[in-house]
Amino acid sequence: MSELHARRDVIKLLRDLRAVRDFGPDPVPEAFLDDAYEVARWTGSARNLQPWDLVVVRNRETLDQLATLNGYAKHLAGAPLGIVLVLDNENAEFAAYDEGRLAERIMLAAAAHGLGSCIGWWSGQGRIDARAIIGAPDTTIARTVLSIGYPAVPGGLKPKRGQAETRKPVAAFVHQERYA
Amino acid sequence: MSELHARRDVIKLLRDLRAVRDFGPDPVPEAFLDDAYEVARWTGSARNLQPWDLVVVRNRETLDQLATLNGYAKHLAGAPLGIVLVLDNENAEFAAYDEGRLAERIMLAAAAHGLGSCIGWWSGQGRIDARAIIGAPDTTIARTVLSIGYPAVPGGLKPKRGQAETRKPVAAFVHQERYA
Repeated sequence: MSELHARRDVIKLLRDLRAVRDFGPDPVPEAFLDDAYEVARWTGSARNLQPWDLVVVRNRETLDQLATLNGYAKHLAGAPLGIVLVLDNENAEFAAYDEGRLAERIMLAAAAHGLGSCIGWWSGQGRIDARAIIGAPDTTIARTVLSIGYPAVPGGLKPKRGQAETRKPVAAFVHQERYA
Repeated sequence: MSELHARRDVIKLLRDLRAVRDFGPDPVPEAFLDDAYEVARWTGSARNLQPWDLVVVRNRETLDQLATLNGYAKHLAGAPLGIVLVLDNENAEFAAYDEGRLAERIMLAAAAHGLGSCIGWWSGQGRIDARAIIGAPDTTIARTVLSIGYPAVPGGLKPKRGQAETRKPVAAFVHQERYA
């Protein structure tokens, strides 16, 4: 990653990642999944516990069922594929932090393949139901599912015009040396 | 990101990111910080709350002080720069998840610039002390700091030979359709 143009490509990918909730019908290629598994495998975690399992779901009926559970995962009903992140729940703080890292890497790998993705989030009973549907043990937490597919709108991966207003300006959250 | 070689570069960066704990003396360039701020700005968060502030620390004395707090942030004592992630703590689960996403993006941006990074983690009293040192409000949580600098060992960003054994094989954590 020594060349400037490669660096700019990476920074652009990191900066421009947006949630995609509307997907076209094309299937997700195996080449992406192979990359996603390797990227997941090497994602860092607290004490290198790698406290996660991935359940890859393509079955239409299962996806539709998971989409209706309590929480916000409706976009899964329109996605050709979902990846449920199943976390060991021995330390809730580590689990949530590591899960955020894992989700981020998989979504970036998807974007590198021209695929869109969105985090679906289950709450309360939705988590218990999700665990039952995919057959995960009671000791785990099934909190998020990544909807993955090609964006329905061409260029759907790119930021929209005027979207800058949806984020705080840098000066509002970056501080030098001290917070205040 | 349509060309295959750009895709391979990105996947390689995502897969090869490793924690770097030993740094050389060269300062962290402003060009990286500008990219890091933009990447942080656009990192996704639950309900788009963007519940974070970054405190960029270069002062040697402050870095050394933060390195000794309860937890594991010793590597900060050898780093030319640290970024403290300060999270709003209204929803602990969201905060930890979003913080994981943010940390991951900043570390990937660092790697794109040839810089190494490592997550430092404060526990218990360490968090209270960190907050006091940087002047963050009591309503926030100062849990992690990213040590950033050029790797002391050239090629320190790359995986070491034989390191494959430090991670589970893909078959141990990837499941199709159902967990079990």
